[in-house]
Amino acid sequence: MLTYSFADIGSESLYHHLYQCIKNDILSGVLSAGMKLPSKRSFAKNLGVSNITVENAYAQLQAEGYIYSIAKKGFYVREISDLTIPICVPHADRLGQNALHKQYVVDFVSNRINPEQFPFSVWSKLLRETLLNRHEELLEMPPWGGISELRKAIGCQLKEFRNMDVSAKQIIVGAGTEYLYGLLIQLLGRDKIYAVEDPGYHKIAKIYESNDVQYRCIPVGRNGMDVDLLEESGSHVAHLSPSHHFPTGIVTPIGKRYELLSWATRREGRYIIEDDYDSEFRLSGKPIPTLQGIDRSERVIYMNTFTKSLASTIRISYMVLPQHLLQEFEKRLSFYSCTVSNFEQYTLARFIEEGYFEKHINRMRTYYRRIRDELVDAIKGSSLASCCKIMEEDAGLHFLLRIDSGLSDEELLQRMERAGIRISGLSEYYYDRTQEVPTHTFIINYSGLSTGKISDVVKMFTKCIFVG
Amino acid sequence: MLTYSFADIGSESLYHHLYQCIKNDILSGVLSAGMKLPSKRSFAKNLGVSNITVENAYAQLQAEGYIYSIAKKGFYVREISDLTIPICVPHADRLGQNALHKQYVVDFVSNRINPEQFPFSVWSKLLRETLLNRHEELLEMPPWGGISELRKAIGCQLKEFRNMDVSAKQIIVGAGTEYLYGLLIQLLGRDKIYAVEDPGYHKIAKIYESNDVQYRCIPVGRNGMDVDLLEESGSHVAHLSPSHHFPTGIVTPIGKRYELLSWATRREGRYIIEDDYDSEFRLSGKPIPTLQGIDRSERVIYMNTFTKSLASTIRISYMVLPQHLLQEFEKRLSFYSCTVSNFEQYTLARFIEEGYFEKHINRMRTYYRRIRDELVDAIKGSSLASCCKIMEEDAGLHFLLRIDSGLSDEELLQRMERAGIRISGLSEYYYDRTQEVPTHTFIINYSGLSTGKISDVVKMFTKCIFVG
Repeated sequence: MLTYSFADIGSESLYHHLYQCIKNDILSGVLSAGMKLPSKRSFAKNLGVSNITVENAYAQLQAEGYIYSIAKKGFYVREISDLTIPICVPHADRLGQNALHKQYVVDFVSNRINPEQFPFSVWSKLLRETLLNRHEELLEMPPWGGISELRKAIGCQLKEFRNMDVSAKQIIVGAGTEYLYGLLIQLLGRDKIYAVEDPGYHKIAKIYESNDVQYRCIPVGRNGMDVDLLEESGSHVAHLSPSHHFPTGIVTPIGKRYELLSWATRREGRYIIEDDYDSEFRLSGKPIPTLQGIDRSERVIYMNTFTKSLASTIRISYMVLPQHLLQEFEKRLSFYSCTVSNFEQYTLARFIEEGYFEKHINRMRTYYRRIRDELVDAIKGSSLASCCKIMEEDAGLHFLLRIDSGLSDEELLQRMERAGIRISGLSEYYYDRTQEVPTHTFIINYSGLSTGKISDVVKMFTKCIFVG
Repeated sequence: MLTYSFADIGSESLYHHLYQCIKNDILSGVLSAGMKLPSKRSFAKNLGVSNITVENAYAQLQAEGYIYSIAKKGFYVREISDLTIPICVPHADRLGQNALHKQYVVDFVSNRINPEQFPFSVWSKLLRETLLNRHEELLEMPPWGGISELRKAIGCQLKEFRNMDVSAKQIIVGAGTEYLYGLLIQLLGRDKIYAVEDPGYHKIAKIYESNDVQYRCIPVGRNGMDVDLLEESGSHVAHLSPSHHFPTGIVTPIGKRYELLSWATRREGRYIIEDDYDSEFRLSGKPIPTLQGIDRSERVIYMNTFTKSLASTIRISYMVLPQHLLQEFEKRLSFYSCTVSNFEQYTLARFIEEGYFEKHINRMRTYYRRIRDELVDAIKGSSLASCCKIMEEDAGLHFLLRIDSGLSDEELLQRMERAGIRISGLSEYYYDRTQEVPTHTFIINYSGLSTGKISDVVKMFTKCIFVG
């Protein structure tokens, strides 16, 4: 049986050490694809550690895609397989303005944060102090990439949360990722072909469309984007959310991450836009390294936003450019003024520097975990249990709810709409409707839910499914 | 006859490829000065492209000054010595990042407001109250055009200051005019030709360039943009600042305004973008009605910003769309989230509603008038009077200073740079350097000046001109 030494591990946790050892052996080929790993219990006994240590290590390896499990059999070293599907245009989505005007009882679509959770008093205090003490700086035009305090703070945060080594100069702050996507089109070129995830977040394709840029929709399977189809598509730039795919919740496994990087390095001028939009909210296990962090060839443009972690109505996002693109940006596009107000840039910088951001994230993670757990428990403990299955609940702020029902998706959606539930079906996010589109599967974005409403939600779902 | 290959041009447009080929041949001397180019028709036939392709290429070359036309004869290569400064492509401007890092004693270039003049205490109070009382609304995603309170407040303000009748719905708020220009390109179309003012504010042409959009530089004379040349240029959209042209300070007279409107209505799909960027600060006389206000055919898109009237580091601008364009925008582009933070939108709305904005503007107008008057008086009362002439001092926040001196512009600029004066010459803002470019004329943007510095400024100028 596999044996690893736990001597000299210093302050590293047992589970993390074990995880590292197995990961190294998979990467170096000592453990080959398809190989069965020892059962948790016997492995724990053999290593002289607790069952939970092995369980945690396996869970992390599984989340990162190094291993997979077969029910009642055990854990196996992963071998990467793909799906085949062509290219297509997005169909109209239902998430437009109008939906915003209707008052819903429960909203599983928008990213509105519960007002009780926003750190109003700290934010207000920092803002007040900024306005009091920094008159000169507040009225000084910031550098095009944003004020340096904020970029430095973001750099430290990336190091801490994501183990990324990034200089503050590489960070460009802008008023929302949508705006930054627009800048990237100008930077990388309108003559390039952009690959987007199918299913995926529709706005991204819409931005390419509105900018008269060609794009291809590449299927995302259980293991992330299909690299063969990406290659075939002739795309130059791949737009990905490997840490938490929207809407399926899939986390791209490490093997596929290297495959994607290898696609990017195979030809000059290829890039990956890595959208890491809600990685702060991974609720279980250790975060998975970013593509940017394992990229050695300057092929990855990393993006993240405070829209999810702070509030969607404070429009602050940023991107991290590889050095050579940074130079290109400075040469051609640095004439654009930074789009974020100095007042909020200085306030956010202090919010991060003084540890409030980390505290806020920790608090929110606990808060979201509780909502998720209570919601999941409530569903499982109700009559919904017989017909509902919950999937992909570990990463980010949404999970999938599969409802086994004789009713059509349309009928289910109509009933929920009538009941005041704002919800979207997974199938809505597919561009290519000829591929096998999952039905009866709904996206439960629980970030705006409060625990007090959970029993109502269960009653409403029950009524929609069983009564109508 | 001239022949160029159109193989392997990739996604580049035919006209642009042809333009590039001819331009390269002119620059390398293959096509020499005075040489006649083939007629459009025969050239098109020879190359196997459409007449319009050649026409567009010639138009671009002509606009950029590489070739010129003689009526009823044809197109000729321009004398190469005229081309010492690359044309139409705005030359590297000195307003970039680097300039920001140098400490100047006096700055006549940037729009930095004097910190003593910003209403910090009122702004801070309103912000604090907003944060205290509007938790729910602050975290609610705003409509794509911006929160309705702010748009209504802007609507009232436009009625009051500019006598414009505009519904709040027509107003779209965004993080700076540069961002809004980008949206307009997406709205009006990348296939349109945009006319910019020559001389003019370089950023506008740069935005068109970065978006791969064709633009023409149309001369602006004593009465505003030359409408005949605008017509000839084949442009669809004219980008104008009729209330206060930058940098010449010219106010387009009412007669010319009607001429411009009549140009716009003459053909379907023509529009005027009216940039009213500092109209609040007209210091003498009655304001002239906006183009938007006298437009009866929905041809004018009005733009304004709080960058000048409040602070350049609070990024809030807006545009007013005609009804039919508003519908088009809603249909195609309303998926974009509003780029301005709710926190600042609500604060600004109250700032306007409660009369603080009007008070601020009145105070600033008095303040700027005093600075201008003192500066003008100080110049006129000094030995500078013998060689300096002040022009266009009534509108907005800058005037022109003509210095009669045996020194070249370059020498004058170098001396001022050495003395710690940040200043730009009028000639820097000309695209077409073959037209008569005014020399010895400098732009005095006095918005960041304080009265205490005026006597120093006069001394510094005197030293630069007479001593060196």
